[in-house]
Amino acid sequence: MALPLNPRMAATFPPPVMEARRWLEGVEFPADRPLINVSQAAPMQPPPEGLRQAIAEAALTDTAAHLYGPVLGLPELRAEIATQWSAAYDGQIAEDQVAITQGCNQAFCAAMATLAGDGDEIIVPTPWYFNHAMWLQMQGIRTVPLTTGADLLPEAQRAGQLITERTRAIVLVTPNNPAGVEYPARIVADFMELCRRHGIALIVDETYRDFDSRSGAPHDLFADPDWDDTLIHLYSFSKAYRLTGHRVGAIVAGRDRLAEVEKFLDTVAICPNQLGQRAALWGMRNLGQWLAGERDEILARRAAVQTGLTALPGWDLLGVGAYFAYLRHPYAIASDALARRLVAEAGVLLLPGTMFRPEADTQARGELRIAFANADRAGLAALFGRLAAFAP
Amino acid sequence: MALPLNPRMAATFPPPVMEARRWLEGVEFPADRPLINVSQAAPMQPPPEGLRQAIAEAALTDTAAHLYGPVLGLPELRAEIATQWSAAYDGQIAEDQVAITQGCNQAFCAAMATLAGDGDEIIVPTPWYFNHAMWLQMQGIRTVPLTTGADLLPEAQRAGQLITERTRAIVLVTPNNPAGVEYPARIVADFMELCRRHGIALIVDETYRDFDSRSGAPHDLFADPDWDDTLIHLYSFSKAYRLTGHRVGAIVAGRDRLAEVEKFLDTVAICPNQLGQRAALWGMRNLGQWLAGERDEILARRAAVQTGLTALPGWDLLGVGAYFAYLRHPYAIASDALARRLVAEAGVLLLPGTMFRPEADTQARGELRIAFANADRAGLAALFGRLAAFAP
Repeated sequence: MALPLNPRMAATFPPPVMEARRWLEGVEFPADRPLINVSQAAPMQPPPEGLRQAIAEAALTDTAAHLYGPVLGLPELRAEIATQWSAAYDGQIAEDQVAITQGCNQAFCAAMATLAGDGDEIIVPTPWYFNHAMWLQMQGIRTVPLTTGADLLPEAQRAGQLITERTRAIVLVTPNNPAGVEYPARIVADFMELCRRHGIALIVDETYRDFDSRSGAPHDLFADPDWDDTLIHLYSFSKAYRLTGHRVGAIVAGRDRLAEVEKFLDTVAICPNQLGQRAALWGMRNLGQWLAGERDEILARRAAVQTGLTALPGWDLLGVGAYFAYLRHPYAIASDALARRLVAEAGVLLLPGTMFRPEADTQARGELRIAFANADRAGLAALFGRLAAFAP
Repeated sequence: MALPLNPRMAATFPPPVMEARRWLEGVEFPADRPLINVSQAAPMQPPPEGLRQAIAEAALTDTAAHLYGPVLGLPELRAEIATQWSAAYDGQIAEDQVAITQGCNQAFCAAMATLAGDGDEIIVPTPWYFNHAMWLQMQGIRTVPLTTGADLLPEAQRAGQLITERTRAIVLVTPNNPAGVEYPARIVADFMELCRRHGIALIVDETYRDFDSRSGAPHDLFADPDWDDTLIHLYSFSKAYRLTGHRVGAIVAGRDRLAEVEKFLDTVAICPNQLGQRAALWGMRNLGQWLAGERDEILARRAAVQTGLTALPGWDLLGVGAYFAYLRHPYAIASDALARRLVAEAGVLLLPGTMFRPEADTQARGELRIAFANADRAGLAALFGRLAAFAP
């Protein structure tokens, strides 16, 4: 007799990044033509030396770095976020409006757990971040796709038409994963106004904010003294300080909301890992200048991606920004099949649009995502060369 | 307009350990009579020097220690667990039947997510571990209490009477949290047989196995070559190597089950943190002898608890083992009120039985849990002295 299987879990698609890794199995890449992996938004370099030393120092000398801490995170880190965010967004964010999580995915899960249950609805612009869709599916929450225009920007007015009595939140990711686009402040404000009017939450996931090409605050939501009646903001330390393997993220939200988040995190995490939190804190306090240089480099790569892809015959660059370029390919092959062929025939690993849209959305068949942040300019030139030479 | 709140989350009780910490606010403890904190099963000492150095070394020199890794964990750690468990339990456990999680609480959540959903039932002996009950409540799963006898041991026959068509699993924690009792191999085998007959899962949480007073394997479930048709085993690295702040746990289960677990972990964790996994691996490879000494010390403390509590007039020691003693107090005061008074009047922080049983279970009013592992023999003597002197 087979063991029970939660039907919702069975219906949830498997992790796309792990699936893509499996495509590599059994494929040989010649030494003079190694794999170009642009599948995941993940730095391949370790954090800077000073940060590694700070982690080592904490491991050796700080007893508390090995012990349980508060469920909602290291007080100093919460305070640092409150201070830096208040300045960056020209708003008022208090320490007890910040919680630390084991990565930003967990921040999303925690926020959602407090908002929505079985049969509720969450509106998410397409293309979307697959882990968001997976969590909602597992939880029996309906992900309502909000189609975007040719510019891949969502419109609040269109979202308004999708709101029902079961709608609990709208999720914006800006700069966007997978589409790369940076949402204009006006659009984000329109969504805030829409959500407030309907008494639903606006989740703004700013995992890639440190690589936004615009100067200054990307939106003015926190300047509203009542922001916490509607806004839940998510952040990740993985990209800014190359801490992907340490799993540290954050939620900024109202105090009552965080009391509910605490229940979720207590059962799923007990507390975020202590060394990772210390690493994030050290980064916030010491790596501002270094991070500005990282951003410059990412923006230079983005410019190279724009130039290179615009020159590729038949390809369209639909969106580009932060770590991602989102493309339309010129072939009469569905993107998931194409992505698998690109591994063997071009030595390129990227993710197909089918991973970023609901199954019924045929637009996905023509689309591909490139996570270009790991590739330097020589690597990007090689990537464009291989795509140009590919003949299906 | 207030934001939506998931009613299941609202109905879930707040984290007991955090609630207990709040009881300390505003209470002064004189320097000559400091707080005795026996509320949480948490080492207060850092891991041994060699382990701290291994973590520091990895932080400085191992690039992969800072980057994303496989969702199901570090391959070397999975392999090490497979090898050591196969030997310890005299069974066959393969590397791909092991997954690593961000702590053992997350292992439980992941296992449950694959098994049960809205309206399903899970049978759990009482008193129970509160985080298990919290997660099930949040997920809309009914926790069915299995009452235990005076010895706090569960009986498979009684459990069998509680099984319905909605039952998906039975959860055993051995050595038990909060009751301390070590489940005899025969009882565990009875549950395995019961679960297999009904086609439901048996979850065996062995977080405290390293401090079991018995020699050899505590049960023979893994000796059955078909163990993975029924058994899901959970483990924590927090206690053995004092890694509570690193959040590393494990699930041992069938391959198909782990494919489902991978979906859950991908959305909630992406991967376990890399330094913590390296710390656990180093501990498994280097701290066997040290851990045996730790166990001896815990067993000595357990003996001191037995002696001390048996001598306390009017108190009953209901269960003792691993990190915990579970007691019946002699006062006509409900345990939650008593626990709060013990903070101010005796300088003792412990958790009341009300946190470990369903709300309607009045037995909880007379019960208290002591997590004695942190207290040395002088500390335990002071604890018994304060409890003896307490006069409500």
